[in-house]
Amino acid sequence: MIDVQNSKKHAIDQLLRISERWYQQIEAGDIPSISLATRTKRNLAYDEETEVWKLGDLERNRAAVTEKSARHILRMAYTIGFLKHQIMEDRSSTLREMYYISEGWKKAKFSDQHESNMLVEDLEILTDVQREYFNLRPEENGASIFGPIELREQTRRGPKKIHCQDDVGEAGYQIPTNVEQLELLDHDADVVIAIETGGMYARLIENKFDEKFNAILVHLKGQPARSTRRLLNRIQERFELPITVFTDGDPWSYRIFASVAYGSIKSAHISDILATPSALFIGVQPSDIREYNLPSDALNERDISALKAELTDPRFMTDYWKEQIAIQLQINVKSEQQAFASRGLDFVTDEYLPTRLVDLGVRLR
Amino acid sequence: MIDVQNSKKHAIDQLLRISERWYQQIEAGDIPSISLATRTKRNLAYDEETEVWKLGDLERNRAAVTEKSARHILRMAYTIGFLKHQIMEDRSSTLREMYYISEGWKKAKFSDQHESNMLVEDLEILTDVQREYFNLRPEENGASIFGPIELREQTRRGPKKIHCQDDVGEAGYQIPTNVEQLELLDHDADVVIAIETGGMYARLIENKFDEKFNAILVHLKGQPARSTRRLLNRIQERFELPITVFTDGDPWSYRIFASVAYGSIKSAHISDILATPSALFIGVQPSDIREYNLPSDALNERDISALKAELTDPRFMTDYWKEQIAIQLQINVKSEQQAFASRGLDFVTDEYLPTRLVDLGVRLR
Repeated sequence: MIDVQNSKKHAIDQLLRISERWYQQIEAGDIPSISLATRTKRNLAYDEETEVWKLGDLERNRAAVTEKSARHILRMAYTIGFLKHQIMEDRSSTLREMYYISEGWKKAKFSDQHESNMLVEDLEILTDVQREYFNLRPEENGASIFGPIELREQTRRGPKKIHCQDDVGEAGYQIPTNVEQLELLDHDADVVIAIETGGMYARLIENKFDEKFNAILVHLKGQPARSTRRLLNRIQERFELPITVFTDGDPWSYRIFASVAYGSIKSAHISDILATPSALFIGVQPSDIREYNLPSDALNERDISALKAELTDPRFMTDYWKEQIAIQLQINVKSEQQAFASRGLDFVTDEYLPTRLVDLGVRLR
Repeated sequence: MIDVQNSKKHAIDQLLRISERWYQQIEAGDIPSISLATRTKRNLAYDEETEVWKLGDLERNRAAVTEKSARHILRMAYTIGFLKHQIMEDRSSTLREMYYISEGWKKAKFSDQHESNMLVEDLEILTDVQREYFNLRPEENGASIFGPIELREQTRRGPKKIHCQDDVGEAGYQIPTNVEQLELLDHDADVVIAIETGGMYARLIENKFDEKFNAILVHLKGQPARSTRRLLNRIQERFELPITVFTDGDPWSYRIFASVAYGSIKSAHISDILATPSALFIGVQPSDIREYNLPSDALNERDISALKAELTDPRFMTDYWKEQIAIQLQINVKSEQQAFASRGLDFVTDEYLPTRLVDLGVRLR
C-alpha cells in the first residue's frame, strides 16, 4: 500500500526537475528563473466542482535579475540539495531544524524561519509533492484518535498495528506528524466525530460514546494541524464514513469546521488531499444556545466582525450558515461546547449528539 | 497496587470532614468558617531538607461574617456535594465542566473559572488529597513518553499494559491527565531525558537515542503539566533513575527545569509529590552557546530581567547557576535546543548529550 521506494524516487525526481530547468536556462544563455502560482488572496478560488479552495491560474515568474531574486534561487538550490540527501538517507527533520541547518549555507542562509517555511511551500507547489515526502515535519502535533478503527504505522522500528480502542490508553492514539506512513486497515464505525476541545473529547470517551454509537473520536486540538485534516480526509476516502465536526459555538470555531471541510488559504495548494467537503457541522449551533439555554458570553467586537466576514466568505454561503450567523448576531452571545455540562455530564452524549446525528441524516445501527 | 476503593473512601471522608466542622460550629453557636494556609508569595518557603518549595505556616481564617465569605462557604459546600457524588459514581469531569455545572447552583454559581479552580486548590490543601482523587482533570495534557518502560493504565475498559517502545507509534504513549491510574511495572533504562520541545523529542526518537543510551524520553511540551511532573517524580521514586531535563537555553526554560526539580509557586501545596529535587539540568547551558557556536538571538529586556530575577530565586542559588546566568548576561544571547541542528542532525545525540551525561555523572551501560 505504501510504496516507499517509489515515493522517494518520485520526490527526488520532482525536486531535481527544478534545478535541471536552471541548467537548461543557463545553457541557453537565459537567466535562471522559477514560475510559481501566486499565493495571494486574489489568486484563491473556490472550486465549485470539488467544493474546496484552490490556487488559481495566476503565476509569477522570478528570474535571478536582482540580488534578492538570485539569493532566493540559491536558497532553493541549497534546500533541494539538502532534501535530496535527507530523502536518500531516510532521515527526516523539523522545519525548524532545516532553518538552523541553513546556518552553514553562507549566502543562502535563511534570515528567519518564515522564509524557509515559505520556500518549502513553494517547493510543494513546484513539485506537486507534499512536504511529508520530503521528510519534513512540523514541530509537533499531538492530536489524538480513539474509537473502533485499526491502523498500521510504519515506524523506524518496523510496522506497528494499533487498534484505537483496544491497544491504547484512555488518551487515545497520538496522530503522528506524518500520516502518510499510516495504513488504514479496518473499522467498525458508523460515524467520525472530530472534536475541538480536549475536555469534550475526554467526555465522549468517558461516556463511551465511541462504543454506544460506533463512533471514531478525533481530538482536533483547536485549529487542526495538517496531519489531522489529512487523516480525516483519508478516513472519509477509505471507509466512506460521515465526518462530523463538533466545536464551540463562536465564529472562530466555525472556521475550524470550514478548514476541515473546505480547506484553508494557507494550504490551498493541497486542498484536494486535506479538505473533506462532505464533512458536516454538528454544533454548537447558534440556535442551540437558546434552545438548550446554554451558559454563554456576550459577543465582543472581534467576534462580530468575524461573523460578518463569514457572511461574505464563499465557504459559508449556504442558507444554513446565513441563518445561523444571523441568529448569532441577533442573540449576541456565544457558547462553548463544554457548556452542555450545565445540563449534566451525560446530556451531550445522551441527548444532544444523538439528536443532531439524526438531524444530519447519519445512519446509526 | 492502586487501591481504588480505599482512595475513593479516603477522598470522600476528607471532603466531608470540612462540612462536618461547619455543623459542629453551628451547633456550638459559632459562625461556620474555614482555616487555610495562605497562598501568597510571603507564605512560600524553600524547604532545605526536601529541597522543594512548600507552603509556610501562615493561615487565614475565613468565617461567614460577610456576604462574600458566606457565599464562598456555600460554594465550597456545593462543590463538596458535587465531588462526593462524582467520586461515588466513578464519574469524572474537567475543571471547566465543573465550572459550568455550577450554573445550577443558584447563589453558589461561580462567576468565572478562575474562582472554581482556586476553590479546588483550597480543597486540596484542606483535605490533603490531590484533585486527581476527586476525579477532576484539566482540559488537556498531551505530553508523551517513549522508551524502555512498561506500565499499566487503569482505564474504564479495564487495565491496559503498554510498553512505551514496542506497543506505541512513533509519537509515543500519551500521558493521561490522571497518572495516579498508572502502575509503573518495569524498565530497562539508565536515564530519563525530559525534553522541552516536540522537535527535539522527535529527533531523539528518530536517532534511536532511547535504544543506544537506554533512555526514557519524555516530552514536556513547554512548561510541564502537573501530570507530567508527577510522572517524573514517580519514575524517580519507583525506579531510582536519574532524571535529566533538556530545554532551550533561555531564562524561561530554566524555570521549566526548576518547576520539575523544585516545584512551582502555584502547586507549592503538593510539591512533595510533584517535584523531583534530584533532577539534573542537562542543557542548553549558556556556556554551550559559545562553546558550540550555536545560532543565537540577542536577549531582550524581558529575558534580562528574568535572568536577574533568577539570581535572587532560592532555586537558582547554587554556584553552577550563578555562573551560568552570569555567562548569559555577559554574552547577551540565548539559543534554542534545536539550534544544535546547525552542526548536523546527529550532533546532539552523538556528541552533545553523551558528553553532558558523562559530565553529570550519569552511569550508562
